[in-house]
Amino acid sequence: MQLGLVGLGKMGGNMRERIRRAGHTVVGYDRNPELSDAGSLSELVDKLQAPRTVWVMVPAGAPTQSVIDELAELLAPGDTVVDGGNSRWTEDERHAAELLAQGIGFVDAGVSGGVWGLENGYALMVGGDAEHIARVRPIFDALKPEGPYGYVHAGKVGAGHFSKMVHNGIEYAMMQAYAEGWELLEKVDSVTDVREVFRSWREGTVIRSWLLDLAVGALDQDEHLDKVRGFAQDSGEGRWTVEAAIDHAVPLPAITASLFARFASRQNESPQMKMIAQLRNQFGGHAVENTDGVGDHAD
Amino acid sequence: MQLGLVGLGKMGGNMRERIRRAGHTVVGYDRNPELSDAGSLSELVDKLQAPRTVWVMVPAGAPTQSVIDELAELLAPGDTVVDGGNSRWTEDERHAAELLAQGIGFVDAGVSGGVWGLENGYALMVGGDAEHIARVRPIFDALKPEGPYGYVHAGKVGAGHFSKMVHNGIEYAMMQAYAEGWELLEKVDSVTDVREVFRSWREGTVIRSWLLDLAVGALDQDEHLDKVRGFAQDSGEGRWTVEAAIDHAVPLPAITASLFARFASRQNESPQMKMIAQLRNQFGGHAVENTDGVGDHAD
Amino acid sequence: MQLGLVGLGKMGGNMRERIRRAGHTVVGYDRNPELSDAGSLSELVDKLQAPRTVWVMVPAGAPTQSVIDELAELLAPGDTVVDGGNSRWTEDERHAAELLAQGIGFVDAGVSGGVWGLENGYALMVGGDAEHIARVRPIFDALKPEGPYGYVHAGKVGAGHFSKMVHNGIEYAMMQAYAEGWELLEKVDSVTDVREVFRSWREGTVIRSWLLDLAVGALDQDEHLDKVRGFAQDSGEGRWTVEAAIDHAVPLPAITASLFARFASRQNESPQMKMIAQLRNQFGGHAVENTDGVGDHAD
Amino acid sequence: MQLGLVGLGKMGGNMRERIRRAGHTVVGYDRNPELSDAGSLSELVDKLQAPRTVWVMVPAGAPTQSVIDELAELLAPGDTVVDGGNSRWTEDERHAAELLAQGIGFVDAGVSGGVWGLENGYALMVGGDAEHIARVRPIFDALKPEGPYGYVHAGKVGAGHFSKMVHNGIEYAMMQAYAEGWELLEKVDSVTDVREVFRSWREGTVIRSWLLDLAVGALDQDEHLDKVRGFAQDSGEGRWTVEAAIDHAVPLPAITASLFARFASRQNESPQMKMIAQLRNQFGGHAVENTDGVGDHAD
Repeated sequence: MQLGLVGLGKMGGNMRERIRRAGHTVVGYDRNPELSDAGSLSELVDKLQAPRTVWVMVPAGAPTQSVIDELAELLAPGDTVVDGGNSRWTEDERHAAELLAQGIGFVDAGVSGGVWGLENGYALMVGGDAEHIARVRPIFDALKPEGPYGYVHAGKVGAGHFSKMVHNGIEYAMMQAYAEGWELLEKVDSVTDVREVFRSWREGTVIRSWLLDLAVGALDQDEHLDKVRGFAQDSGEGRWTVEAAIDHAVPLPAITASLFARFASRQNESPQMKMIAQLRNQFGGHAVENTDGVGDHAD
Repeated sequence: MQLGLVGLGKMGGNMRERIRRAGHTVVGYDRNPELSDAGSLSELVDKLQAPRTVWVMVPAGAPTQSVIDELAELLAPGDTVVDGGNSRWTEDERHAAELLAQGIGFVDAGVSGGVWGLENGYALMVGGDAEHIARVRPIFDALKPEGPYGYVHAGKVGAGHFSKMVHNGIEYAMMQAYAEGWELLEKVDSVTDVREVFRSWREGTVIRSWLLDLAVGALDQDEHLDKVRGFAQDSGEGRWTVEAAIDHAVPLPAITASLFARFASRQNESPQMKMIAQLRNQFGGHAVENTDGVGDHAD
Repeated sequence: MQLGLVGLGKMGGNMRERIRRAGHTVVGYDRNPELSDAGSLSELVDKLQAPRTVWVMVPAGAPTQSVIDELAELLAPGDTVVDGGNSRWTEDERHAAELLAQGIGFVDAGVSGGVWGLENGYALMVGGDAEHIARVRPIFDALKPEGPYGYVHAGKVGAGHFSKMVHNGIEYAMMQAYAEGWELLEKVDSVTDVREVFRSWREGTVIRSWLLDLAVGALDQDEHLDKVRGFAQDSGEGRWTVEAAIDHAVPLPAITASLFARFASRQNESPQMKMIAQLRNQFGGHAVENTDGVGDHAD
Repeated sequence: MQLGLVGLGKMGGNMRERIRRAGHTVVGYDRNPELSDAGSLSELVDKLQAPRTVWVMVPAGAPTQSVIDELAELLAPGDTVVDGGNSRWTEDERHAAELLAQGIGFVDAGVSGGVWGLENGYALMVGGDAEHIARVRPIFDALKPEGPYGYVHAGKVGAGHFSKMVHNGIEYAMMQAYAEGWELLEKVDSVTDVREVFRSWREGTVIRSWLLDLAVGALDQDEHLDKVRGFAQDSGEGRWTVEAAIDHAVPLPAITASLFARFASRQNESPQMKMIAQLRNQFGGHAVENTDGVGDHAD
């Protein structure tokens, strides 16, 4: 089938390639003309035969909103828009309503796969009406991994992004789990080869996983991770997961701890620890370490 | 080779079977005569030719100590004892010294595999002198999974149990990660099929793992887990992991959160939440729910 | 001066009393005619001389919005509205803009004091323009405690509610701190009189506080808190505090842990712990406790 | 009465002064001859009339053990030893037994007061037999604050140190609570005077406390805490509190979070965050920040 694909960055570019390999026709559009198959969104729409399917793969927030606003004007009743970006699930209902007013279908698709998706396939979690999803199904089949897994119609509009968001929340805590274990093993004198301990866990253990395989890969490149800074970004979906949990009064201690550990890692100086240090000094005369490097005692 | 195996419970019994399948001779001893190949520890030792190797697979603490004490008397210089139970790593050095005084070697082995080990093999993390480990190597080879992983000489005496303990700590947080995500998905109306979301994650996602496969298996038996109580035991190794981290000033927020969630799950009434409820009543006149079911307002 | 006061519930009623004791005139309005001094909002406005000051003390969200909408129509340029309820700070700018369009000033006031405020005074954190705040200052002076503390102009519109929200977040973690300590002391055999330990802390310690005094009061009524259920509500401001922290990438581990402990306390069964229990059963054959009370082993 | 006091550092020196002001005779001993009233422990014992009371105020662990060992030899039946240092409660029973074997009584005393104790009095939590405590009571009365609070006989031997330890655990979480709130307020543009918000909280709020007063004092010296590093030590008692909770399966999320935040603050680079950063790079091609300052992309 034909697909319009908006956004040809790291993810979108590889997805175009994988869809084409499956025999479909992809007309891609990107603001970067070197990547783009069409000179404009309008031209992309013109190149597709009705009923059209357009997959939006641009950053969440204003960029996605802007593309959807344009598509609402350019497309026709019976067409379908897929938002495959990292939009917050709370946006999906609004987007669906905006498009539905023009008779255009909407599907939200959470996409996992990163740099490995081109070869291994992308896991897809989609939300929306069965009728709209059916229109896109051949593309989903092209993108997903081989085998019985890697694709789910998770529920109503928003369920795809919500499921992907929770996937990322779980990912945060799993990464934190391995990271905590690794740091502890590195601290202990009796364990002389932490990397080999990690490697051994790849089979026969309860904690074997793809992330563990990646951890071993990272240690093979840099055994003690001396070459990177202990500084971890977050992409937004961890934050949304915690906020969704708060809305539903679900305790999420491990995922939230993982998010906060990243926040803390990005602070050169922890303001809250300055307050702790000063309070200790106030009541106990405990030394604080001044920014000029000279200790100070209250007494 | 010949192996003496002390403790033929759920784990030990299956291990005897797997070792025998690999062509080795196992003389097992258990207090339960129906399981035992020898009438006593002393008879087990008599049935083995020197240099002997005896694998201890009994509960940590007093039972393991008692077997090691007996073996220190029964065995001879050049023999080797393996502690494959869940002993705390802090016990290992003491056990090694006690046996070394008799010329007996000591190896600590953390064993992972549970009910799946008989067929899939047991992951092994071992600590001790290379010389002592070499004596046991054929048994390790029989127990471990096929393929390049699942066995590691982690370091000095204690390193095997320490590595296994950290493995379990990581396991706690990974399980907590999936459990938090599952609860959140179950709370949201738009996601209509949480089990299928979990199943889809088995391929192409960042969070695919053996534990995820097990989670899907559990949901296949009982889609909303209505048949079990929300009550989780802990085996001790999670506690030790947190204590080891405290000793080394390593922050372990996700693993500790996972341990505390289990503690809380086992309380019918949370004492600390009683205090919170009463404090809210004291300062704000907020209602508390009395054990007699009648609300009480301060004002 | 004259004040219109909308909302005469537990808080509003006591505040009216305290303001009147200070010699001001209060015209109160409440939907409950037994409490109300005016038959309608419109009548309340008519009873005040311009420039009028109206204090809104109704539940956050729709009730506050509705009162502000009405006041925007009823009041005149030069009048001032104070929102003293528990509105989320994110509402304040919108309310201020809506009123400003009619020439009406707006001040947000976070109010602390609960059932003790009538006698001891209410702590006030206010946000808005100095000019608008000046109009209300006599009322603030009547409400606040005697002495130099208990009142602050915290900043721009929204700063009052934001400061009060953070106050409540801190309150959550302080209550949790005492509650955790109390539960631990109650668990230990050697400490034979936990209540007297708490009482002794009221002087000379680092942790003496008003909340500690209240905790002792609660224990004096019910030494082991046997009469209440371990079940703690949350009022919303703890949730907003965590969400604000997430927006600003500030780690808030203690406050968030306190919020999550309350969430967990309100679950009869923890769904996430059901998943943990089932996973343990899947890989280790650990017993789970079925809802029919019969243990189940995988092996 | 007469008291022997061993250890005349910051705490011990001030305590000697306060006890003397109450009219008692103190013979102090310190390894520093400039502070000491006696040339040796033996001389200190000789200077006291039987039945003697000796208060030990030296660092926990080996120093306290060594003094108690010496006193067990130097003292006589009917004498009493008080351990007022920060010993772990698990040491107390052993010390009591060692001394009891010589007919010497033992009391453990947790002491709070820091640099403020000389003027305001020291809060005391004591454990041991009523008979032994009665012998020391005049000294306790001299040290404690005026008024009805600040002293408790908490229970059996060990209960004093246990109660003080929990006091410190609570202190950790209270300090963390204020510190988290302060950092959040400092991040928000609308709140223009965070110090004055803190100051206002000193009266009429739920969170008023002595620690809050100290926080305001710290901010008055250094409004944004620019002069100190965000680096917080821990004294050991927070760690013991968490370990005691783990022993008793009591969840302690806020206190533990506070301890871990201190651990993290002392790491220039977080090893676990290096692992997180590398894992993100492995699966997503997310940039990591290299130690040479140059970004690295996987793709």
